[in-house]
Amino acid sequence: MPVRPSTFRASGVVTLTTDFGQKDPFVGVLKGQLVARFAAVRIIDLTHEIPAHWPAEAGFWLARSFRYFPPGTVHVAVVDPGVGSAREIAAVEADGHLFLAPDNGLLAPVVDAAVAVTRRHVAPAVLARLGILAPSATFHGRDIFAPLAAALAEGRLAPADLGRPIDELVPGWIEEPQVTASQVNGTVVTIDHFGNLITNIEPRHLRGIAHPVVRAAGREFAVRRTYSDVRPGEYLALVNSFGVVEIAQAEHSAAEGLGLARGAPVVVLSK
Amino acid sequence: MPVRPSTFRASGVVTLTTDFGQKDPFVGVLKGQLVARFAAVRIIDLTHEIPAHWPAEAGFWLARSFRYFPPGTVHVAVVDPGVGSAREIAAVEADGHLFLAPDNGLLAPVVDAAVAVTRRHVAPAVLARLGILAPSATFHGRDIFAPLAAALAEGRLAPADLGRPIDELVPGWIEEPQVTASQVNGTVVTIDHFGNLITNIEPRHLRGIAHPVVRAAGREFAVRRTYSDVRPGEYLALVNSFGVVEIAQAEHSAAEGLGLARGAPVVVLSK
Amino acid sequence: MPVRPSTFRASGVVTLTTDFGQKDPFVGVLKGQLVARFAAVRIIDLTHEIPAHWPAEAGFWLARSFRYFPPGTVHVAVVDPGVGSAREIAAVEADGHLFLAPDNGLLAPVVDAAVAVTRRHVAPAVLARLGILAPSATFHGRDIFAPLAAALAEGRLAPADLGRPIDELVPGWIEEPQVTASQVNGTVVTIDHFGNLITNIEPRHLRGIAHPVVRAAGREFAVRRTYSDVRPGEYLALVNSFGVVEIAQAEHSAAEGLGLARGAPVVVLSK
Repeated sequence: MPVRPSTFRASGVVTLTTDFGQKDPFVGVLKGQLVARFAAVRIIDLTHEIPAHWPAEAGFWLARSFRYFPPGTVHVAVVDPGVGSAREIAAVEADGHLFLAPDNGLLAPVVDAAVAVTRRHVAPAVLARLGILAPSATFHGRDIFAPLAAALAEGRLAPADLGRPIDELVPGWIEEPQVTASQVNGTVVTIDHFGNLITNIEPRHLRGIAHPVVRAAGREFAVRRTYSDVRPGEYLALVNSFGVVEIAQAEHSAAEGLGLARGAPVVVLSK
Repeated sequence: MPVRPSTFRASGVVTLTTDFGQKDPFVGVLKGQLVARFAAVRIIDLTHEIPAHWPAEAGFWLARSFRYFPPGTVHVAVVDPGVGSAREIAAVEADGHLFLAPDNGLLAPVVDAAVAVTRRHVAPAVLARLGILAPSATFHGRDIFAPLAAALAEGRLAPADLGRPIDELVPGWIEEPQVTASQVNGTVVTIDHFGNLITNIEPRHLRGIAHPVVRAAGREFAVRRTYSDVRPGEYLALVNSFGVVEIAQAEHSAAEGLGLARGAPVVVLSK
Repeated sequence: MPVRPSTFRASGVVTLTTDFGQKDPFVGVLKGQLVARFAAVRIIDLTHEIPAHWPAEAGFWLARSFRYFPPGTVHVAVVDPGVGSAREIAAVEADGHLFLAPDNGLLAPVVDAAVAVTRRHVAPAVLARLGILAPSATFHGRDIFAPLAAALAEGRLAPADLGRPIDELVPGWIEEPQVTASQVNGTVVTIDHFGNLITNIEPRHLRGIAHPVVRAAGREFAVRRTYSDVRPGEYLALVNSFGVVEIAQAEHSAAEGLGLARGAPVVVLSK
């Protein structure tokens, strides 16, 4: 395939997205390795609470978050049910940002969301060049991803040094919403801290629907602009600040109120 | 009102106090916007676990914490049940620090705790000047507070640039303790990680009380210097390291042991 | 005792290990004091979720984590059931790193893990020199450890300035594994975010055992290389990425599945 010229200029910033949680020192030692290899690195936690074994959510949040970081940011995502098995490391350059993750479908939403995309697998010779000779079988975040990210964030390594461009990565975990003339069928991808049900349905999916209402859990929700447009305890649907349809209950948890979880179907149709 | 000369000299430090929790990427993208606009910013999390819809606790902790940060720090607090409704942004300059929050009563404890205070509302023209043209309706932390804080922390914007001084902000959420000749009636404002019940009663409120004891949940607690002055499992009251009266149970949770929650009344009287 | 020449060269990095949790502003104000005294300090959280009153776990994780940080790092650990009582501050220089903690046995695992060790108590005159005149009785992390760590991380204070070397600190909390010709008796020290049961048994303890199997909770577990060597739901034992024996259940919580907690006995013997 033709090689797209790289627009990645290292900013020195690294974001972290994992399923490690915050109670153990796993995130801390990963950061230790970043700082040990690139003293001036700037590290920002995106989240460490991705459900273990559910990489889909990591890709979803990354795709919806990366543009709020400076161009030239290295985004490391480590959620990998198959850690220790034979697994390539995916490096995706997308719109001037660089993403590193196990090639297990995690990065599919990022690829979908970006305009200019180059996919690579990290070549074994690159790891050797960085002195990564005997990584542990179970903590690739610390032993492989941190050294790689440090070198890329410092500009000692360029995306093109990682390997040759390839055509495809492992496909993603969540189906795109199904759009017909009269309705859109989507999915609850995640539930936030406030209990809001966040779907994968975007405004562009709704273009054909004149007066959209949202249906889930056997109920219908009017589309509003913001939480304060209804009274406390009332439900609403809105396009949230990450650009996707969300079902909320003002000052309460919609997830608890409706008894819905990740993966629940959500339909938008015309009232 | 007379304009007090500003003593704010930007230190480059920004603190964050929110109800966003740590499981979603909300805090991360807010930090992304800070770094994208001021690459050398130093960000410190105060807490992201303020109970949703209870701004009082954010103001309480800020008032008791800000002096431990360098002068010239910008403190951002976003806890706002009314996000999306018409709401001014309050900017309070207090003893050489700067505070940004929705004008919903959150900053009242900071105003009470400081000597030199200047209150402002952020003028819409300031947001336009920073390129904040179409903020989301629901994520002002990322879209408004982060760009404002970045400009102030870098010194590109001075407090006086934000708007003209005003006389009053929206009043606070918690009443000051009631002090009489024989007793002080206060309130449990928050419960910490260890289950200690933290009140809004300060040593200055107790000046008229010769031999203070603390009463709550129908029980009485002797005032001690520190947790190790009693045996594990015993209760005590003390003036804690943030300068307020606290009820604790050594090596246990007083909140669980006594069945008390935020808002519970606490009385100090003479034994 | 002979004074070992110091190999500590301040890197500017400080790690934090506490039982403060992340919901209160305790960690934030401690960081405020670090930044107020050393503006360029780089702070990395190791963990703030050590069980209150169980310093053993802090020492365990520090001993297994510190080598992933740059030489010259100052590691601050504050887990202290006896805070407020008469307690020395221990300063341990170990293999080019510096550790500060209450002298309550917390640092014993670090001393055991290092080759070149110098132990000290911090002399009261050092605190006075740093302007620490009236620390609170209950928040030594903010009032004593932060100013000390800032001065050491900046290089304004050298380890040798802290006090004269001493022979012994308070002993540790957990017994070393008992090794006999036919078996090793160890202990579950901690349980991680994934529910993996992490013991204090190291590969060196297993040298005499030809075909090791791990026994706990009345069951036997084969030793594997990594989680993906068994099917989801199956149990395994492995030497984990921190170099100790761990019992795991692939894609599940072994702690829940086996009903085991910290302190549970674990035996390795030959099958």
